[in-house]
Amino acid sequence: MFYTPGFSEKKSLLNKEESHHCINVMRFSKSSIVYVTNGRGDLYKAEIEEPDPSGCRLKIIEKQSGFGKRDYNLTIGICPTKNPGRFEFFIEKSTEIGIDNIIPLICSSSERKKINPERIERIITSAMKQSLKAYRPILEKVQDLKEALKDDFEGQKFIASESVDPEMNLGSLCKPGENVFVLIGAEGGFSEREMEQAAGSGFIPVSLGDYRLRTETAGIVACHTVHLVNNLER
Amino acid sequence: MFYTPGFSEKKSLLNKEESHHCINVMRFSKSSIVYVTNGRGDLYKAEIEEPDPSGCRLKIIEKQSGFGKRDYNLTIGICPTKNPGRFEFFIEKSTEIGIDNIIPLICSSSERKKINPERIERIITSAMKQSLKAYRPILEKVQDLKEALKDDFEGQKFIASESVDPEMNLGSLCKPGENVFVLIGAEGGFSEREMEQAAGSGFIPVSLGDYRLRTETAGIVACHTVHLVNNLER
Repeated sequence: MFYTPGFSEKKSLLNKEESHHCINVMRFSKSSIVYVTNGRGDLYKAEIEEPDPSGCRLKIIEKQSGFGKRDYNLTIGICPTKNPGRFEFFIEKSTEIGIDNIIPLICSSSERKKINPERIERIITSAMKQSLKAYRPILEKVQDLKEALKDDFEGQKFIASESVDPEMNLGSLCKPGENVFVLIGAEGGFSEREMEQAAGSGFIPVSLGDYRLRTETAGIVACHTVHLVNNLER
Repeated sequence: MFYTPGFSEKKSLLNKEESHHCINVMRFSKSSIVYVTNGRGDLYKAEIEEPDPSGCRLKIIEKQSGFGKRDYNLTIGICPTKNPGRFEFFIEKSTEIGIDNIIPLICSSSERKKINPERIERIITSAMKQSLKAYRPILEKVQDLKEALKDDFEGQKFIASESVDPEMNLGSLCKPGENVFVLIGAEGGFSEREMEQAAGSGFIPVSLGDYRLRTETAGIVACHTVHLVNNLER
């Protein structure tokens, strides 16, 4: 699967990077059939017309709109981990499982306040292609918790906390078919004051289970919990 | 939390590695209160009696047996990934979420047939301590699929496959309160012949969702699905 933002019936040209990958690396040639997405839900089946490694022109054979569309939208606000590899692992896994918006969050216990957006965008693209998705998760800019709380999100809002009774878990409280926003803190968790601020903005404190999880594990577990809630017959 | 296999009322001594960690690294001293597990479900609250960095003797204050005991046992047989770091990530995450037995599996599409058991045992120990668990997952020896199929496991047996209808997913088929055994193949999945052999041994083909997952993601998703099935009110 290839990805080119803005790819459409009117502009059926792979971008430079993907043209190189398609022609020089994967060795596709004229008349080969390939799949392309624009990351906005459109999946194209197309034939290579001009195998130019710096701008490969395609002829569209078939278009599927809303490919793999879910009936919920998932936003996760999560603190980057001290070890960047762990945060990147969350990015890759949540993209594979299914997520729409990722907000790198800064809270009082944050040990890392910066990310490498280019590197993370590359991981998102690679995981999207690997897991054959036509919707590309959006990486938002790094935000303070306060800023994230002001987000005019419509749907269910949760904040993960270790001090919540395990019975009040995300899996039991999350309703299927509705948008979900989950906040996940750094290793030290959110402070009491932060929990109060979040509650004031309508975020419900939830447990992610009766175990202590690393930040990136909490993110993956939250993402998969919302997925399962929406896919289990209950 | 410290871990010493065989730690008990009769032998309340941290092993060499943990004694060093406790006294030299964490700087605990005489009369400090620490928590110790033997990895078999016992959690001890204890006081340091002899702060010897090569053999730290403790006085047990309290013992909890069956700490964090689940009402199901989970075994996952999974093919080591080409990139060892991905397999190790599965090991760490499944230990955090909860798993009992890990079988490194060899199937026809396996690209890696060896693991570094010492390294993986260290990852298991570290993740167990990090997530405050008193049961330590057991790393079984590397096995051919055929051998794993002969395992006289009592409980629900599943084999993950991408070609199964997403409605036949692990989350919907897995019953709570029963032991579970899940097989997960290498990137290429199991061959038709392997799927037949597994079916012949009572393994039910299941989907892990309507997406394509990397091996290590499939392992984490399977582990968390079984966990959620056992913890959601349905």
